[in-house]
Amino acid sequence: MSHFNVYDEENTLLMIPGPVPVHPRVLRALSRPIYGHRTSEFRALLEEIEKMLKPLFGTKGPVFMLTGSGTAGMDAAIRTFVKPGDKVLSLVAGKFSERFAEIARTAGGKVVEVNVEWGRAIKPEIVEKALREHPDTKVVTMTHNETSTGVLQPASEIAKVVKEHGAILVVDGITSVGGDYVKMDEWGLDVVVAGSQKCLGIPPGLAFVAVREELIDYIERNEESFAYYTDLKRYWEIWKKSKDLPFTGGISLFYALYESLKIIHEEGIENRIQRHRLMAKMTRAGFTALGLELFAEKGYESNTLTAVKYPPSISDKDFRAKMRAHGILVAGGQAHLKGKIFRVAHMNLTAEREVLTVLAIAELVLKELGFPVKSSGVTAAMNVYLREKGRAR
Amino acid sequence: MSHFNVYDEENTLLMIPGPVPVHPRVLRALSRPIYGHRTSEFRALLEEIEKMLKPLFGTKGPVFMLTGSGTAGMDAAIRTFVKPGDKVLSLVAGKFSERFAEIARTAGGKVVEVNVEWGRAIKPEIVEKALREHPDTKVVTMTHNETSTGVLQPASEIAKVVKEHGAILVVDGITSVGGDYVKMDEWGLDVVVAGSQKCLGIPPGLAFVAVREELIDYIERNEESFAYYTDLKRYWEIWKKSKDLPFTGGISLFYALYESLKIIHEEGIENRIQRHRLMAKMTRAGFTALGLELFAEKGYESNTLTAVKYPPSISDKDFRAKMRAHGILVAGGQAHLKGKIFRVAHMNLTAEREVLTVLAIAELVLKELGFPVKSSGVTAAMNVYLREKGRAR
Repeated sequence: MSHFNVYDEENTLLMIPGPVPVHPRVLRALSRPIYGHRTSEFRALLEEIEKMLKPLFGTKGPVFMLTGSGTAGMDAAIRTFVKPGDKVLSLVAGKFSERFAEIARTAGGKVVEVNVEWGRAIKPEIVEKALREHPDTKVVTMTHNETSTGVLQPASEIAKVVKEHGAILVVDGITSVGGDYVKMDEWGLDVVVAGSQKCLGIPPGLAFVAVREELIDYIERNEESFAYYTDLKRYWEIWKKSKDLPFTGGISLFYALYESLKIIHEEGIENRIQRHRLMAKMTRAGFTALGLELFAEKGYESNTLTAVKYPPSISDKDFRAKMRAHGILVAGGQAHLKGKIFRVAHMNLTAEREVLTVLAIAELVLKELGFPVKSSGVTAAMNVYLREKGRAR
Repeated sequence: MSHFNVYDEENTLLMIPGPVPVHPRVLRALSRPIYGHRTSEFRALLEEIEKMLKPLFGTKGPVFMLTGSGTAGMDAAIRTFVKPGDKVLSLVAGKFSERFAEIARTAGGKVVEVNVEWGRAIKPEIVEKALREHPDTKVVTMTHNETSTGVLQPASEIAKVVKEHGAILVVDGITSVGGDYVKMDEWGLDVVVAGSQKCLGIPPGLAFVAVREELIDYIERNEESFAYYTDLKRYWEIWKKSKDLPFTGGISLFYALYESLKIIHEEGIENRIQRHRLMAKMTRAGFTALGLELFAEKGYESNTLTAVKYPPSISDKDFRAKMRAHGILVAGGQAHLKGKIFRVAHMNLTAEREVLTVLAIAELVLKELGFPVKSSGVTAAMNVYLREKGRAR
């Protein structure tokens, strides 16, 4: 018996919400010999990278670059703006927005959680109500694109309400920045966090925190610091002066990021977002056609990840193991959604070929598991594609 | 006029204290297609890596792996063991030991600094004296190999004193681990921090915190947490259970680390340390022969970095610019040592070829700058090599 596995680790299609498939140009950039980071050459690279990042956040403000997981970025956003005793309103509707509340508590924040059923959107009215009940709220936290549920929260509407109450809005945009619209300055998102291994198209290891220009003053006036590695003031002071990082950055990952940003700007941000939106529509149409139900509230579906409910007859373990055996990695549910849903990410390079592939393999697996598939997911997704591209007959 | 530069960024010999030259095998590992991190394959890789790291720290305890700069590791070590109000004795004898004190203050520690002149060794007696004056000291911090001054501090002797007083010794081993002896369990170093871009031979972006088994209990009992990303308890709980990381790790860097650790173990730890020690001796002999003075206190010189005093006639700017133009990057002095010293690292792959090269180019540059070179640095270093290898005539 052969032990050869055609779908080994390096030949697996990643449809999980990070890490995502990385362009070969980016992989090559990673293996570039490294150079010193305290050099004018590296500072010029950082400056260029920051310029290329700004439009993805929709801001004229600085984009701080940290070496770390996306969580390091969330930690920095919180620790910079939440001081012990500050009231924090955390909008919680999934695992990642929950994490924000947890981080704020470790920073000494008095956290009030506004809990919304996982899978549902956070309506501006409930934020309004909570802010009226807690007028001393200093910071509001939310996750823009909640990958644990596949919901895209209405960030611009929520921002409007938060602005009226004069609070600082700190947004986890880890899985929206680079894949969907994020317009910090226009919408009034004060602080937005992003990660490298999602729609920015590189491996994990870098985190970004963009801050609106209006908030820079707050950072500068920040006298007391209870953080060190994740204190944005340290980043701002050296950045302002010399476009440098306070601590040694993940040099290879910056080489990769530069290449990925070039790719992103070659495609064009608007084209990129429209492609992500089309892929999301195809994915939703495909799984619906197969006879499965979507998890996210209608009208608020994420454009970078689709969460799908399991039919009662299908076990998470079997489904994902078989998907994996056929060469595709998809994600299961988290926390109480474990076993209830699976999640398919469509980020970065994921385009029609990958979406049709995941639908074909999902159909194969469902049939192998004896599920009575309703109709072809591939055909349904293809029809969406042809219609949107104006080439349907 | 040609604008071609033969010594461009990718063709420069890095003799700075990180990043260091990285083996082509490691560069290739970086460009390996990435795979999911929440998989049994990735967990197996992490487990294997941790096993390979332990002997470099000389401990049976766990080695926590964080995605971030070395400073993230220092931050984690402090934030895990220093709670607001705890007394911290910081042994300060350079820029990096100073940073430890600064981090401890942001964590709410009551910091007492024991200052030693930069370039001098910290003698156990002054630690003893300070601990007698501050018997309520909970944590003592120190930097094992101080790259800002080129001094290797007598960690085992200091540990003995600290143990007698029952305090926790937290050591920055960022530039010693993997290049010099670090024997946590034998010497009694409780917590040791390391970085990836020094003697572990990969690009920056990973930090390590090794903890002696005796201290695990402390981490487990840690009720209150004032950190999130840099709280080791979060790392320990998931590591203990499933050899996993709490936050998405820098996957590509772990591929690189695995390859680098294989290289390290192929050479053998003892051989590797002896090679570093020989390179340090050659470097010291070479610069002394050229007529320059070493900065570190005699008998306490670092084996991974040599700090050299500038003669009054030589400017830092000119010297390093010319070194760079001839294809070698060396480091200047930091803080008040700026302009006073230059620093040559000999870490990881740096061996006789590189040491002889840096001495040859330094001689060329000194002559270009009109310095009356005393004798050949290359010859002196070569003699050390031949003598040590037992092949001198």
